[in-house]
Amino acid sequence: MSKKIPTRLYLTEDEIPKFWYNLRADMKDKPEPILHPGTLQNATAADLEGVFCKEPVKQELDDTTRLVPIPDGLQEFYKAYRPAPLIRAYFLERALGTPAEIYYKFEGTNTSGSHKLNSAGAQAYYAKEEGLTSLTTETGAGQWGTAMAMACAFYGLKLTVYMVKVSSQQKPYRKALIETYGANLVPSPSLTTDSGKKILAANPDTGGSLGCAISEAIETAVKTDKCRYVLGSVLNHVLLHQSIIGQETKAALEKYDIKPDIIIGCAGGGSNLGGLISPFMGEKLAGKSKTRFIAVEPASCPSFTRGRYAYDFGDTAMTTPLLRMYTLGNGFIPSANHAGGLRYHGMNSVLSKLYKDGYLEARSEVQTDVFDAAVSFMKTEGILPAPESSHAIKVAIDEAMECKRSGEKKVILFGLTGTGYFDMTAYMAYNDKTMSDHVPTDEELERGFASIPDIPQNK
Amino acid sequence: MSKKIPTRLYLTEDEIPKFWYNLRADMKDKPEPILHPGTLQNATAADLEGVFCKEPVKQELDDTTRLVPIPDGLQEFYKAYRPAPLIRAYFLERALGTPAEIYYKFEGTNTSGSHKLNSAGAQAYYAKEEGLTSLTTETGAGQWGTAMAMACAFYGLKLTVYMVKVSSQQKPYRKALIETYGANLVPSPSLTTDSGKKILAANPDTGGSLGCAISEAIETAVKTDKCRYVLGSVLNHVLLHQSIIGQETKAALEKYDIKPDIIIGCAGGGSNLGGLISPFMGEKLAGKSKTRFIAVEPASCPSFTRGRYAYDFGDTAMTTPLLRMYTLGNGFIPSANHAGGLRYHGMNSVLSKLYKDGYLEARSEVQTDVFDAAVSFMKTEGILPAPESSHAIKVAIDEAMECKRSGEKKVILFGLTGTGYFDMTAYMAYNDKTMSDHVPTDEELERGFASIPDIPQNK
Repeated sequence: MSKKIPTRLYLTEDEIPKFWYNLRADMKDKPEPILHPGTLQNATAADLEGVFCKEPVKQELDDTTRLVPIPDGLQEFYKAYRPAPLIRAYFLERALGTPAEIYYKFEGTNTSGSHKLNSAGAQAYYAKEEGLTSLTTETGAGQWGTAMAMACAFYGLKLTVYMVKVSSQQKPYRKALIETYGANLVPSPSLTTDSGKKILAANPDTGGSLGCAISEAIETAVKTDKCRYVLGSVLNHVLLHQSIIGQETKAALEKYDIKPDIIIGCAGGGSNLGGLISPFMGEKLAGKSKTRFIAVEPASCPSFTRGRYAYDFGDTAMTTPLLRMYTLGNGFIPSANHAGGLRYHGMNSVLSKLYKDGYLEARSEVQTDVFDAAVSFMKTEGILPAPESSHAIKVAIDEAMECKRSGEKKVILFGLTGTGYFDMTAYMAYNDKTMSDHVPTDEELERGFASIPDIPQNK
Repeated sequence: MSKKIPTRLYLTEDEIPKFWYNLRADMKDKPEPILHPGTLQNATAADLEGVFCKEPVKQELDDTTRLVPIPDGLQEFYKAYRPAPLIRAYFLERALGTPAEIYYKFEGTNTSGSHKLNSAGAQAYYAKEEGLTSLTTETGAGQWGTAMAMACAFYGLKLTVYMVKVSSQQKPYRKALIETYGANLVPSPSLTTDSGKKILAANPDTGGSLGCAISEAIETAVKTDKCRYVLGSVLNHVLLHQSIIGQETKAALEKYDIKPDIIIGCAGGGSNLGGLISPFMGEKLAGKSKTRFIAVEPASCPSFTRGRYAYDFGDTAMTTPLLRMYTLGNGFIPSANHAGGLRYHGMNSVLSKLYKDGYLEARSEVQTDVFDAAVSFMKTEGILPAPESSHAIKVAIDEAMECKRSGEKKVILFGLTGTGYFDMTAYMAYNDKTMSDHVPTDEELERGFASIPDIPQNK
């Protein structure tokens, strides 16, 4: 390690990876297959293609192709905002007085403010190639909706975004941003779909939910000519697209002969964590590295640390195929005081399998500790982190302080998935000390577990 | 031009310029000196040091040193967010169908969201070096206040930001961001200063003004031990710090043998425009290039295109030294429907001199046209531009379309100073077509001109 390490370790445009890495190909013990919810048989491409675009379905089911070429027309899109900077946290290290080296991959320099754009671009590209003219999706906090609106503007596709109604009211600027990119934003539940109408008839004053927004988006996709539905996390093809994060990071670190001892990422549905760790995990599975991997989740939504490994629906309306994953039950709802994302009940099935087999560790953190870490970070490194990303910061700081105690000079890498520009309400609550924590009781968890389907595979 | 030009033309960390460029040193006809408002004699360092930090005062008055070294302790700060990307607008070019090559220097990837951080870092660094413990400033829209809060957090200085009261109410998230970085934010006018008390006594319901906030910030700086006042635009030392923009841009273009035919920047107080064009203008003054330079200002605040070249106060409270500049009069207030910044009545004196002597062109644009350009840009290039920056986009598109008509393959460069995350209210008004334009009448301008001081130098 004789080379001087700059603050920002950039790749040139020519060095941007031209392949996604499909970790499943290198897993001897594969993640378990998706099941059709009616037949409980392995889902086929035909089962999924009515809802999703063709090429992503192929990628979803492909657990053998190791390197998947990124199409030229998508590489062009990636060049508009990539490579994302890999940053040496010199200032944070100094403030902590740690002998550890800390690096973070920053995915928040694009306007969507997060890594979500990596898969949004891919899914819009494939939809265009397939000859579709429009897409539908749902969004909660709004990062995914923004990313899809940007990608559809770029590729010339119409987009309808069902945004959880209460979120569209609480975040009018997020809504406005999505609309400015030209998307049709519908607060959900709405009168534009049967499922929306049904929910509104039963509960006219509801603020909506992600599950309901998904149902409306899928219904519209299925009923509209040349239209499909896109999803921003959880699924394996999303993880594949997000492997660009890890591919870039690994390429940049290798230019300086840096090998991470610990890699840390926040985990909601798992797409960012999975994308960051994939190529590094591949080396570990091959016995070529002893890197530790840590998933960080909110204590208020602890799917890894307190969930069950079972087949469950991806949505709360129980319409999707069944995924084998760590889950709190599709009926689990994080407490209302939880700020930011990472509120999904389940976890991508590749990551779930790795966790089950002991390759991946997990920790849960309460949000006031997470915001403490966020503010330490922003005052030294200068970047306003998203609440989600700050979970990874918290554990990176903990590990760096452990190095300070032990005197070890470990190399710590974490994913800084996005910025907090649209999360200032949470920062305000933190600043004026009205932010509180909630750790679900065992009884609350049991209520969630009760929604996990009672099928033979779960016995 | 045989080299393939990437979408993003990055410099390595080692290539980040280590010197600011002081354009005044290469001007045969210098900008006119600052005057003490009482004596009407040339202002001295001693006159200015009671309010401003020492090194910036030295820089303010130095019109002979060509290259000013950027101190090591500040280079370190710059490395946290620089080099700023220089981007080839391939997608915008394609959408316009123009033979022109379009480039933009994007200063919005740091959390303050704009170029303001370049001078904020410098001024905080010098304050720390001088042994000061705190600073004061004012902010309107909030970009400068955020930048100073970030810089003071980094260098360990206390900061009080007087934020125009109506702006602090309309932009609670901007306020929260500044506070999260640890600054003390005071809505102005306030009861913390004599000038604030006086204004509130006369007009208890006032929403405040930038002039009033400046008065409060200066009063507090002067009355506090080891404290000075900092300003984010208009002055020559700010222009000097911002020359890092032009220095970096020139270095990146030279790596690819690119010579701009036209350079375009938005102009409020002039710091971004001056910073971007300085090294290129130096070549033009030396007869080494025929580059055209275009300042773009809002039609609602047209200091270049409709202002007078006269000595005027920098603030509406008429407390600052007198600056020779294009001015609408310190009493001029842009109409209330004007969105975003660029609402300053005057213009940096270096730029004013260049405009007067014919080296710099200027255009004014109405805001609905500016937002049309912003939305075309964001749908192709993916970046949400600040309303200020979008003035430059508008003229860049006009020039590119002129090339389409003439068939000329010109090289167009513009400054994309920042992002519009905190300007969504303006985008919402644009989207729902409630945004309107206002071009001041001659009578309105005359009322502003009446506030220009009646001194011998203005005869």
